[in-house]
Amino acid sequence: MYVLHYYPDTASLAVRMVLAELGVQHRCELIDREGGALSSPAYRALQPLGLIPALETPDGTMFETAAILLYLSDRHPGLAPAPDAPDRGDFLKWLFFTSTNAHTTLLQLFYPERTAGPECVPQVLAHALPKMKRFLALLDGAATANPGWLSPDRPTILGYYVAMLMHWLGGFGAEHPLQINAADYPALYKVLTMLEGQHATEAIAEDEGLGPTPFTAPLA
Amino acid sequence: MYVLHYYPDTASLAVRMVLAELGVQHRCELIDREGGALSSPAYRALQPLGLIPALETPDGTMFETAAILLYLSDRHPGLAPAPDAPDRGDFLKWLFFTSTNAHTTLLQLFYPERTAGPECVPQVLAHALPKMKRFLALLDGAATANPGWLSPDRPTILGYYVAMLMHWLGGFGAEHPLQINAADYPALYKVLTMLEGQHATEAIAEDEGLGPTPFTAPLA
Repeated sequence: MYVLHYYPDTASLAVRMVLAELGVQHRCELIDREGGALSSPAYRALQPLGLIPALETPDGTMFETAAILLYLSDRHPGLAPAPDAPDRGDFLKWLFFTSTNAHTTLLQLFYPERTAGPECVPQVLAHALPKMKRFLALLDGAATANPGWLSPDRPTILGYYVAMLMHWLGGFGAEHPLQINAADYPALYKVLTMLEGQHATEAIAEDEGLGPTPFTAPLA
Repeated sequence: MYVLHYYPDTASLAVRMVLAELGVQHRCELIDREGGALSSPAYRALQPLGLIPALETPDGTMFETAAILLYLSDRHPGLAPAPDAPDRGDFLKWLFFTSTNAHTTLLQLFYPERTAGPECVPQVLAHALPKMKRFLALLDGAATANPGWLSPDRPTILGYYVAMLMHWLGGFGAEHPLQINAADYPALYKVLTMLEGQHATEAIAEDEGLGPTPFTAPLA
């Protein structure tokens, strides 16, 4: 029995979708973010940095979104290459690429002041945006070959992970300088479109108020 | 047969040590960094961002240091929990933590201008240094319980990964404001001391000119 500590429209989203897609028994526990729960000793015992998500598992508590996704996909096969599969290396390469490059750069776009303080916000954004687009272009290139681990034919953990990032990046609004449009990444766009039609996505998007096309055309 | 594209004292170091520790057949190919090889089409075909390292494997070319380490430890057991081991979740959590938090923050300390340009270097450094120390303190806390995946009793891929980061962080010099001393992290210090005594470390440290105590007291 898994317990996901979540908050709507945060990084718990990818984990929640994957748990639903896998169909494994789990419980979602809403974090009292407004009430300061992220700073509480109880939550810090689960996640020492006070970040979302944390997942309680039979093997202990996990954090780090990509680590959780990989752990789940290895424990419950079907959403990623198995550890001994020939495409495991490619999959791991792009999973870590997404986590260390795309996700961390996305956080600079959303919280630029955390990187270098309020006076350097414009500079942080100016550096992060082209990096973000380059990383997405590389991911799009990887997806173009239709690999099993980032496919328009079936859900994968990397697909859901990228979908969550695209949901945020596409939600600035059409006129916003940081807006990124999923349609500019055609191979990813096909993956996102497929994932929007998954029951796991539809149920959670409704529950978290993400609108009908949360990945290809998110609400601004 | 693996081919590691490396350059001394870069992130290829962790991969090189792990390949030697595993005792698997491999060849190290020096990158002509001064000659601009990182920008060459041939290298970009291996590593699209022009970063070090890249590893040619029977399953294709890999990049992302942590992905390579995980791939190798799964293909050649002994340096990390197996995919079905009960401590696999903890291991993955701290491996991703090290990659997405510690390693990326370290890069901000070494290349602060890449984050927000030359005018924000002091601000980037001022934000990155306390984060770096906090991440190391958390890793040290995780190592205190002497888990099998970051142990002073035996080499692990996470041990070598952290050792490489500490090698760089401890090499600024005693009087440098960014200097981080391994001795401030007692559990990690024990891991580093053990790894310095490994033949894999000694041979590569000599070849790459890293001195006799590359992790606990690196050359400035």
